[in-house]
Amino acid sequence: MSTVPKRPKLDGEANAAEEEPENAETLEQIDACQNEIDALNEKASEEILKVEQKYNKLRKPCYEKRSELVKRIPNFWVTAFINHPQVSGILDEEEEECLHALNKLEVEEFEDIKSGYRINFHFDENPYFENKVLTKEFHLNSAAASENSDWPASTSTPIQWKEGKNLLKQLLTKPYGNKKKRNSEYKTFFDWFSDNTDPVNDEIAELIKDDLWPNPLQYYLVPDIEVEPEEEDENEEEAFD
Amino acid sequence: MSTVPKRPKLDGEANAAEEEPENAETLEQIDACQNEIDALNEKASEEILKVEQKYNKLRKPCYEKRSELVKRIPNFWVTAFINHPQVSGILDEEEEECLHALNKLEVEEFEDIKSGYRINFHFDENPYFENKVLTKEFHLNSAAASENSDWPASTSTPIQWKEGKNLLKQLLTKPYGNKKKRNSEYKTFFDWFSDNTDPVNDEIAELIKDDLWPNPLQYYLVPDIEVEPEEEDENEEEAFD
Ligand SMILES: [Ca+2]
Ligand SMILES: [Ca+2]
Ligand SMILES: [Mg+2]
Ligand SMILES: [Mg+2]
Repeated sequence: MSTVPKRPKLDGEANAAEEEPENAETLEQIDACQNEIDALNEKASEEILKVEQKYNKLRKPCYEKRSELVKRIPNFWVTAFINHPQVSGILDEEEEECLHALNKLEVEEFEDIKSGYRINFHFDENPYFENKVLTKEFHLNSAAASENSDWPASTSTPIQWKEGKNLLKQLLTKPYGNKKKRNSEYKTFFDWFSDNTDPVNDEIAELIKDDLWPNPLQYYLVPDIEVEPEEEDENEEEAFD
Repeated sequence: MSTVPKRPKLDGEANAAEEEPENAETLEQIDACQNEIDALNEKASEEILKVEQKYNKLRKPCYEKRSELVKRIPNFWVTAFINHPQVSGILDEEEEECLHALNKLEVEEFEDIKSGYRINFHFDENPYFENKVLTKEFHLNSAAASENSDWPASTSTPIQWKEGKNLLKQLLTKPYGNKKKRNSEYKTFFDWFSDNTDPVNDEIAELIKDDLWPNPLQYYLVPDIEVEPEEEDENEEEAFD
């Protein structure tokens, strides 16, 4: 039990003023201070957003140049995926084969940054599907979020599989197909890509955006030893190189 | 088993170049791109820091004005503490009495923001201790952090208890004194204040910094009904007001 009186909300009722009239005006003045602070916080957020937008623009040509260079390295992205400790976990053997055709990856934040982003996967002609680009797009903190029941949401390009090459379908008919978990524990890449049930907790998308996209070279160049714990005798292996 | 060769680190060995010599130069160019991107990221962080510093300066007079106004409201801070759902949980009955003497609270981020902050508790003359100000200070992400084994660290003003008024000592000799947990589950306010064992996970300090300090009015004015679930019949209570 508190010895201090609980007080009602200032805007709602005038109880605080009635109880202790000398406080009412002071509370109004504190509220005015608070509004000034809130306004400053909002201005700070806007300025920070502008800095982020400016640097997104400045980084863009670097990323584009990098993309062009990356295209010259065979299997760059699939190698980076394979060497990434978490992303490697969702790569089925045949998907890995398919991802050899992935020649460009792009992450684009929306202009206002907070509202979402998209990941574009660009493919060479390949035996698996007709699409040149597969896009997974996340609409997260938009102003529409509170009003629109379809928000937050993610969407994925429908994959136009070639005959008999539908990796998703094949995977679903495999015995372990039913055991697959949603998010963070995807069994396969295209299962992740096609799943839009929980866009706010899409760990794989976040790893691509925050880990692989800012610096894929570190994954391309460093072998992911944790994922192959069976290869314990490294010295012996190196002797065959 | 991957069909894609693992590659060694670029800087370390020249294997990538030896294996596929046509890639070596491209990898160097990608690395150069990556360095440009890193430099831009660093500049972005610096600009964002400057914005935050600018607004910390702009907010300061508002906070100071608010402090002066708050001093005119008896028991403002202790009421806000009592009405805060988590902070109320660490208020011992006698501490609550003692905190009636708390006339000013300040949260100061260090100039470079990331390296830490301090919380100053200013007290009126009171029957419990001699100090006018009790400060708990957090040194977190400083440049010294990696080199200095004393980082991260927090420090607390030693409390000069008046004779027979040591609330900490009293609490420690109470039967439940041994059961108290560290952090997030403190039993008492002065236990929290004096504890510096895990400065990076000081939940109470973070609640004061991120919740109470930015807008204490919302806690001062809104009764914390969750903490008193036994008062179920609200209408009946209001009839006695
Ligand atoms: Ca691997
Ligand atoms: Ca309470
Ligand atoms: Mg690319
Ligand atoms: Mg104050």
